[in-house]
Amino acid sequence: MDAIDVIRAKRDGGTLTPEQIDWTIDAYTRGVMADEQMAALAMAILLNGMTRAEVARWTEAMIRSGERMDWSGLDRPTTDKHSTGGVGDKITLPLAPLVAACGAAVPQLSGRGLGHTGGTLDKLESIPGWRASLSPEEMLAVLTDVGAVVCAAGSGLAPADRRLYALRDVTGTVESIPLIASSIMSKKIAEGTGALVLDVKVGSGAFMKTVDQARELAETMVGIGTDHGVRTVALLTAMDRPLGRAVGNAVEVAESVEVLAGGGPSDVVELTVTLAREMLAAAGLASAKDPADALADGSAMDVWRRMISAQGGDPDAPLPTAKETHDVPAPASGVLTRLDAYAVGVAAWRLGAGRARKEDPVSAAAGVLCHAKPGDRVTAGRPLLTLHTDDPSRIDRALEALDGAIEVVPDGAPDLLPLVIDRVG
Amino acid sequence: MDAIDVIRAKRDGGTLTPEQIDWTIDAYTRGVMADEQMAALAMAILLNGMTRAEVARWTEAMIRSGERMDWSGLDRPTTDKHSTGGVGDKITLPLAPLVAACGAAVPQLSGRGLGHTGGTLDKLESIPGWRASLSPEEMLAVLTDVGAVVCAAGSGLAPADRRLYALRDVTGTVESIPLIASSIMSKKIAEGTGALVLDVKVGSGAFMKTVDQARELAETMVGIGTDHGVRTVALLTAMDRPLGRAVGNAVEVAESVEVLAGGGPSDVVELTVTLAREMLAAAGLASAKDPADALADGSAMDVWRRMISAQGGDPDAPLPTAKETHDVPAPASGVLTRLDAYAVGVAAWRLGAGRARKEDPVSAAAGVLCHAKPGDRVTAGRPLLTLHTDDPSRIDRALEALDGAIEVVPDGAPDLLPLVIDRVG
Repeated sequence: MDAIDVIRAKRDGGTLTPEQIDWTIDAYTRGVMADEQMAALAMAILLNGMTRAEVARWTEAMIRSGERMDWSGLDRPTTDKHSTGGVGDKITLPLAPLVAACGAAVPQLSGRGLGHTGGTLDKLESIPGWRASLSPEEMLAVLTDVGAVVCAAGSGLAPADRRLYALRDVTGTVESIPLIASSIMSKKIAEGTGALVLDVKVGSGAFMKTVDQARELAETMVGIGTDHGVRTVALLTAMDRPLGRAVGNAVEVAESVEVLAGGGPSDVVELTVTLAREMLAAAGLASAKDPADALADGSAMDVWRRMISAQGGDPDAPLPTAKETHDVPAPASGVLTRLDAYAVGVAAWRLGAGRARKEDPVSAAAGVLCHAKPGDRVTAGRPLLTLHTDDPSRIDRALEALDGAIEVVPDGAPDLLPLVIDRVG
Repeated sequence: MDAIDVIRAKRDGGTLTPEQIDWTIDAYTRGVMADEQMAALAMAILLNGMTRAEVARWTEAMIRSGERMDWSGLDRPTTDKHSTGGVGDKITLPLAPLVAACGAAVPQLSGRGLGHTGGTLDKLESIPGWRASLSPEEMLAVLTDVGAVVCAAGSGLAPADRRLYALRDVTGTVESIPLIASSIMSKKIAEGTGALVLDVKVGSGAFMKTVDQARELAETMVGIGTDHGVRTVALLTAMDRPLGRAVGNAVEVAESVEVLAGGGPSDVVELTVTLAREMLAAAGLASAKDPADALADGSAMDVWRRMISAQGGDPDAPLPTAKETHDVPAPASGVLTRLDAYAVGVAAWRLGAGRARKEDPVSAAAGVLCHAKPGDRVTAGRPLLTLHTDDPSRIDRALEALDGAIEVVPDGAPDLLPLVIDRVG
C-alpha cells in the first residue's frame, strides 16, 4: 500500500477500505505519509466525501493512534458536552459543575480558541492561579473529589488528529463534515466519557452556517459515538447572535458565575439547564436532582468553587479588567433586530480575546459586553456595546468588524433562530 | 492575499483571479506557500478544473518564474515537437535531425523517463560519450552549427514547474489536464521555440487513455501556445501498442538509426515524416525539402551524426548490449491481435530501462524487442518478444507484467487505433 494509491482512490470518488484508512492514519502519525500527501487526501475527502463506514473507521484509527482514558473506577457515570464553537459560548463553565452537582462525573478535555470563536481554557485561565495542564492522575483525583474537571488534552490523546488538525488549518480543508466529525469524536471518545451531548452551533458565528449542514454534522457525530458505545445526542442551537451578554475571557467567567449564583442572561441559563438535563439523561441519571434546583440552591456554585480551587485557581480573586473601554452607541431608537454573532466574535478577537495563530497569547481582559440583545428596545446614542481592551490601538479594527453588524428599526421583531433548533439522536 | 484564500476559492468551484494566480506561483517558487498548501490546491484544481483563461495565466506565471530563451539571432526559424510520452516513442531521435536537414532549427529541451514511459535523454545517453547538459551558449553553438540540439533543461527554466511537477508526482495530482498542459507548455514556451507540434498519445501506454481526454489536452495546449504567440498544432496518435519494434534505450537508438538510414519499422517512419511535415509547416517552411527525401538521400543521417558528435557522442561506437536475453514465444499460431503498450512498457521498465524514482539510474542495454506487430501472423513457440537485461533476476517480474498483454487468434484482424487519429489546431 502507498499514499498515492489511497489519494487516487478517494480522488476518483471511491470508498477507502478499512485497511487503507488504518494504513493512512498510522503512516501519517509515524511520518511515513508526508504532509503534502495528507493535504491532497484531505482536499479529496472534502470534495468527494466519506461514507458513514469510512468516517467510523477513520475516527477509530485516530483514537488508536494514541491512548484512551478509562474512568470505569469511578463510583458514578461519566458524561460530557462538546460545542462546535461559537461567540459568547461559555456554557461549559457553569455546565460542568452543575452536572456534577446533580450526580454525574464530567471529565472534560477542552481546547483553546482559534479565530473568532473563544476557547474554554482561555476563559478559565483568566482566573488568577488556575492552570489547564493536569496529569492523568491529577485529572482522576479532581474528578473523584469534585465530580467535574476541565483541562487540556495531553499529547498522547489522538496524536494523529493533533497533526491533521494543524494541517487542515493551513490548507483550506477545515470545512469538511467527515473531517470535523472524526476530529471531534476521536478526542471525545479517547477522553473516555460514557455519554456525550453535542452542541452543534448554527449561524453566522458558527462553522455551520445552515441548519442542514449542522444536522448533517450532528447525525455524523451521533453515528460515530453510537458506533463506539458512547451514548450520544446532539442539539442544534442558535449562533446567529452572541450567547449571553459577554464575549471574551474574564467577562465570560464573570457571566458564568452570575449564572451559578442563580442569575445571568436568560439564554445562557436556558441552554445550560437544557444541556445539563440531556447530559444527565444520557448518563442514565434522568431522575437525579434537577439542574434548575442545583442552580437555585447553590450546590452548583459550590462545585464550581471546589473545581477552580483544585486546579490552583482562586474563585474569590478579582478578575482582570481592561485598561481601556470604548462604548458603541445605538445608531437609532427602536428595536434591535440584528447583532451579528460573527461580527461581535471578530471584534472581540481583534480586541485581544482571541488568537490568529496557535502560539499567540490572549488577553484575559479583552472582549465585548452587549448591553442589549436582539428583540430589546434601545435608545439612540446610549451605549449598545462596550469594547474592552488592554491595547487602545486595537479599537479601530474592532469597530471596522462591527460595520453592518447592528440593525435597529423603529418597530418590529428580529428574525432569529430558536435557541434550541432541533435534537438529533 | 494568502494561500488559504486561494485554496478556498478553487475548492469552492470559483475562478482564480490573475492576481491570485500570479501570487500563488510566485509564493510557491519563493517557498512562502508551503508544499502542503500547493498539494491541496493541486487536488482542488484536479477535481474542479480551470478555465482557459486560468490555464493561460498559470502557464504565463510559471514561465515568468524563470528565464525565457531567445533564438531570434538564428538565420532560420525554430520549430519543435513534444510528445506526452509513450512506449517505444523514440521519434525525437530521427525527427530532430530530419527537420534540421529540411531547413529549420530544432532547439529541443527534453526530459528523462519516469514510470513506464521512456525519456529521450535516457535513450541518447546510451550512446558512448554523449552528454545531456549544455550551457545556453553551447546550446546556441550546436543549434547554429548543426541545426538541431536535444539537451536537458537548465534549472533556471520554469523553476515553479520543476517544483510543482515533483510535488504532483507524490500527491496523486498528476492526472489533471490543466496542470499537465501548463507544465508542458511553460517549458516549451520558455524554451523559445517559434513553432511547436504536440504529439498527444492515446491508449493504454499513454497518460490519456481515451481520444476525448487526449483531444481536451490537445485543445488546451494549442490554446496556450497560440495565446503566447507560438504557432502550435497537435496530432492525436496511437499508443495502444508500442511504437516500432524496440522499447528501451540503446535498442531505440539503434532503431532510430535504421530510420535515418532509410529503413526501420513503417509506423516509426510514417509518424516521423508526418511530424516533420507539421513542424516545417508550422515554421513557415512547408515548401522546403520534403522529409521523405531527406531520409532517402542521407542528409538527415548526416545531421544526426554531427548532432551526436557535437555533444561528445561517438555515432560509430557500438551501443551497449545486454548481459542476458530471454525469448517470449508466441502462445499460438495465427494473427497477433493484441500487444498491449502499457504492459510492454512496464516490462521494459522492470528490466531496467526505466526508473521508479527520479534519482534512480537506468540501464542503457535493457529493453524489449518485438518480433511481430499487431496484425502480423505468428507461429506458436517462435519468439514473439525478446527481453534484454543486465540483471537476470528482473526477468520474472517483467514476464508478470506481460501477463494478458498478448492475444493471438486463428484468424482475424486487430482492433487498433489509427496511427494518426486526429489533428487539432
